[in-house]
Amino acid sequence: MAEPEGRRIPVVALTEACVHLLQQAGVPAGQAALIADVCVQADLRGVESHGVLRLPAYIHQVTHGLLAADTRVDVVRDHRATALLDGNGGFGQVAAAEGMRHAIHKAREHGLGAVGVRNASHFGMAAYYAMMALPHDAIGIVISNAAPSMAPWGGIDAILGSNPLCVAIPTGTDMPIVLDMATSVVARGKIRLAAEKGEKIPATWALDDAGRPTEDAAAALKGTLLPVGGPKGYGLSLVNDVLAGVLTGAPFGPSIPSVHDLTRPSAVGFYLQAIDIQAYLPLDSFFARIQQLIAEIRGSRRAEGVSRIYLPGEPELERARDRLANGIPVPPPVLQSLRDLAARLGITLPL
Amino acid sequence: MAEPEGRRIPVVALTEACVHLLQQAGVPAGQAALIADVCVQADLRGVESHGVLRLPAYIHQVTHGLLAADTRVDVVRDHRATALLDGNGGFGQVAAAEGMRHAIHKAREHGLGAVGVRNASHFGMAAYYAMMALPHDAIGIVISNAAPSMAPWGGIDAILGSNPLCVAIPTGTDMPIVLDMATSVVARGKIRLAAEKGEKIPATWALDDAGRPTEDAAAALKGTLLPVGGPKGYGLSLVNDVLAGVLTGAPFGPSIPSVHDLTRPSAVGFYLQAIDIQAYLPLDSFFARIQQLIAEIRGSRRAEGVSRIYLPGEPELERARDRLANGIPVPPPVLQSLRDLAARLGITLPL
Repeated sequence: MAEPEGRRIPVVALTEACVHLLQQAGVPAGQAALIADVCVQADLRGVESHGVLRLPAYIHQVTHGLLAADTRVDVVRDHRATALLDGNGGFGQVAAAEGMRHAIHKAREHGLGAVGVRNASHFGMAAYYAMMALPHDAIGIVISNAAPSMAPWGGIDAILGSNPLCVAIPTGTDMPIVLDMATSVVARGKIRLAAEKGEKIPATWALDDAGRPTEDAAAALKGTLLPVGGPKGYGLSLVNDVLAGVLTGAPFGPSIPSVHDLTRPSAVGFYLQAIDIQAYLPLDSFFARIQQLIAEIRGSRRAEGVSRIYLPGEPELERARDRLANGIPVPPPVLQSLRDLAARLGITLPL
Repeated sequence: MAEPEGRRIPVVALTEACVHLLQQAGVPAGQAALIADVCVQADLRGVESHGVLRLPAYIHQVTHGLLAADTRVDVVRDHRATALLDGNGGFGQVAAAEGMRHAIHKAREHGLGAVGVRNASHFGMAAYYAMMALPHDAIGIVISNAAPSMAPWGGIDAILGSNPLCVAIPTGTDMPIVLDMATSVVARGKIRLAAEKGEKIPATWALDDAGRPTEDAAAALKGTLLPVGGPKGYGLSLVNDVLAGVLTGAPFGPSIPSVHDLTRPSAVGFYLQAIDIQAYLPLDSFFARIQQLIAEIRGSRRAEGVSRIYLPGEPELERARDRLANGIPVPPPVLQSLRDLAARLGITLPL
């Protein structure tokens, strides 16, 4: 597995550094621990775009009054298997975790639970919240909307976000199935990276500002991301915006501010479900069946040049195991940005 | 809109013909009316692959004892917001409609309902059942598993079906949003059609038996369908198989018989959800918000050569309106197969 360059920092040290930074910015200890954990878990799983590199922007928003340091989560509606929460403009991580806790609790009582969250901000890695359902023998489903980056199919203007879907499924083994996907072909970050390096991108990734497929990364950044599978990804993104945005009372479509806009409060919505497996089948039966399916998938003949068939979430799990043992390779610019942030906040990091 | 060739038959006449055929094969009147309606609605919406052309195969299976003429649906488990039904080897249409009725009823009481169905057969067009939620101001979600046609990503063997997902969302107008998609790039039927015509297919549709992308439709039929968006479609198909198959006690993965295999009983599972909008937002607020999103999508600038931006389900709705007014164009071979079937059953059709 090719690892990005960077000093390997032990998980505990990196987590503590994040907690210190967040607390210094006014985030209460318990919330700081959760937010730090979401960031570090993303880095552990190799989802660096949602890892500790986001922390300076979060704290910038806190110190500029655009993100509440202390996230209050209110229950707006509560009706048997459903609830609607309000994140009061605080950390999306705190609101999403609280939402999933409610969903899991409801799933235990009613067989399933589905919780909407509004007035939230970017929650980082969706898999974190979906995987909260796993120890409860439940399937976790997490949907978020996001700032507009994709055009409707046939269109040119960015109307919909790459609104992600994540599903986590327990398997009775130490390897859950975790599908965590954006509804665009690739994340915007990948195109930004290519633009910085002056590299071409495949014409299937994005349209330029005139709606033409482009291999020019800089032109793509002025245009729109292409949805995965054309009209199918457009439809999935729209459905996710309806569930996470329209249905929850959160902003939706083009009214969602960019997470990279550090002058306005971020505002997105989430839709979180937990499904209690035992409402349908005895656990041992479900686990035996899913392990059989996994074995059949692994047993498929492989295409030329393919050394191994992975289950969704398996590469991330293996990366997490390696990094848990050997530390997280934090790129020097990211490490420097954390040190700069610490200096601004008047502390030094034990990194 | 280009229409396939074929005599235009009024909806009522075509429906009555199907009801007669089904009743003559021993299907009770009420069930025959439902199954006929599902077939004709598929033809109305332009989903001909799931329309009346399927009827001869269904009735073949009934007369050969592979499909129960009288579908009994049992409730295996019932727990507040969830239920598990058994279709007892009967018509998938009857079991899916019964499952969605349960889900809608549960959504009214608990905010949402999710029903699994096992021991079912092919249910035709998924949108039929998802759209049952619309008059109840609920969002309908329908998932089915299907006979294996796709390899896991990196693999060669058909392990997973093109397991479809359908989501129907009410909008407070006469145009609901209806996303009805397979998790493969295209349906196998499209490749079969190209093979019959001796036409090439795009290399993005399928792999040959050795796992290489192919433009040869005949070779593709011996190979596997490609999942939409590569690993993302593989993941979606797997999640759908877990919900519709593994979780319900239905067959899953490679153990699902092909619908084109007329020597074995078909056996698939469904997972059906209904989400009560008013558990989250007042109806008028939801409708105002979704209509705003639709207007924003329609208002996008269009790519060159694009005359109009469609919402998911909108082309199907327009086709249905035309065909409701002007009749359904049934291709001569399909019409002939219905007449042949009638002759075998000893009746004549008023077509």
